[in-house]
Amino acid sequence: MGFGITHSSLKMKKAVILLSGGLDSATVLALAKQQNFEPYCLSFLYGQRHGIELEMAKKIANFFSIKEHKIAEIDLRIFGGSALTSSIEVPKNNDFKSSNKIPITYVPARNTIFLSYALAYAEVITSFDIFIGVNSIDYSGYPDCRADYIKSFEKMANLATASSLNSNNFFKIHTPLISMNKKEIIKTGMNLGVDFSITHSCYDPKIASDEVISCGQCDSCILRLAGFKANNLVDPIKYRI
Amino acid sequence: MGFGITHSSLKMKKAVILLSGGLDSATVLALAKQQNFEPYCLSFLYGQRHGIELEMAKKIANFFSIKEHKIAEIDLRIFGGSALTSSIEVPKNNDFKSSNKIPITYVPARNTIFLSYALAYAEVITSFDIFIGVNSIDYSGYPDCRADYIKSFEKMANLATASSLNSNNFFKIHTPLISMNKKEIIKTGMNLGVDFSITHSCYDPKIASDEVISCGQCDSCILRLAGFKANNLVDPIKYRI
Repeated sequence: MGFGITHSSLKMKKAVILLSGGLDSATVLALAKQQNFEPYCLSFLYGQRHGIELEMAKKIANFFSIKEHKIAEIDLRIFGGSALTSSIEVPKNNDFKSSNKIPITYVPARNTIFLSYALAYAEVITSFDIFIGVNSIDYSGYPDCRADYIKSFEKMANLATASSLNSNNFFKIHTPLISMNKKEIIKTGMNLGVDFSITHSCYDPKIASDEVISCGQCDSCILRLAGFKANNLVDPIKYRI
Repeated sequence: MGFGITHSSLKMKKAVILLSGGLDSATVLALAKQQNFEPYCLSFLYGQRHGIELEMAKKIANFFSIKEHKIAEIDLRIFGGSALTSSIEVPKNNDFKSSNKIPITYVPARNTIFLSYALAYAEVITSFDIFIGVNSIDYSGYPDCRADYIKSFEKMANLATASSLNSNNFFKIHTPLISMNKKEIIKTGMNLGVDFSITHSCYDPKIASDEVISCGQCDSCILRLAGFKANNLVDPIKYRI
């Protein structure tokens, strides 16, 4: 006793975790740790309205004592085409659940770009495991959150890289939340000790005296609030309404 | 007569062309125009040693009177891992042809990242055609230059995007050079009127009195010089040797 390094920690496999600062990816990070992966986190500054996300991502990485957290600056605004990267207004109190349309907050090819960077990072650190918090239950309007898309990316990744072609290892894209609803995600995160007060979901936040105040009316806030309510919990973050 | 707009120009389909400033992508652009596509060019500033490439890409886009040329700034140096993005030395007079190894100039997941951006751009401008100058004859060491990788990316792209899921259109990744050797690429470009004096290939160029001087000794220079020689042509760019 008292030797510190356990057998299991010696065998830890590296994994790249896409960390957005939202509650989904914070839960994914906790799940990766539970599965005994050594997390290497990757976040993006991508001209989103809410650079606040990145500050939260840093807090979450810190909360989980992550060894390495890379931030890639990419500018998707050069193409435009989404309420999250250009000047289109974020919809409020939108009836998105009953609509079959893809939300205006969809960013063209976003997850493909994010996963491509994760693949580059994984290859450099010799990891074959990438975690992403996509979810096909809520927000099913996003094409790049579905299981068949993820499978297809995984297959492509194994043809794209030197590391998989030169070894018997295969890239796996882990999507532990893909079949969970928001209620289940929040419950899972709570059970794993995630501090949801340092997560952020709002598409239209305001800052007042250094505090982030969420709108409570965008699609993302509505889903989040309903998820806490379904667990009989109070969301620990601040709202304007 | 004299009406200016021809029937064929009204029907032109938009295409995204990945333009590096090299002779391959300049030839690809000429081929896309020959196939009656309206080219939208995309180049990257990605922490490569030779920002010169971008200047050449601008000259090429200008030479072909391209309507739109986007430049995406991405920083692959945050991951490291390649002679083209970090401080590893570019090999000279390397016997790369006889080696089965992946060259040190390989950039992890580079083409996957480039194609992901091209996909985002295509989706925003409602294009379903992406051109890339990959080649599996010379430089066969790069995994992300092979036909099965490209096919796999294409399949993934059609699952990733709102535009293909909501229409009967399918993304196609065009690789017109994939089975050509350097001799054939240069011959094709010459026949289509490409000005190779404004293209650039060297991994280790120098600038002297505003002129770009190529090393003549890196893998890329060796291939290029041999390609011109095989066509009984003199390469119009300047070399140090």
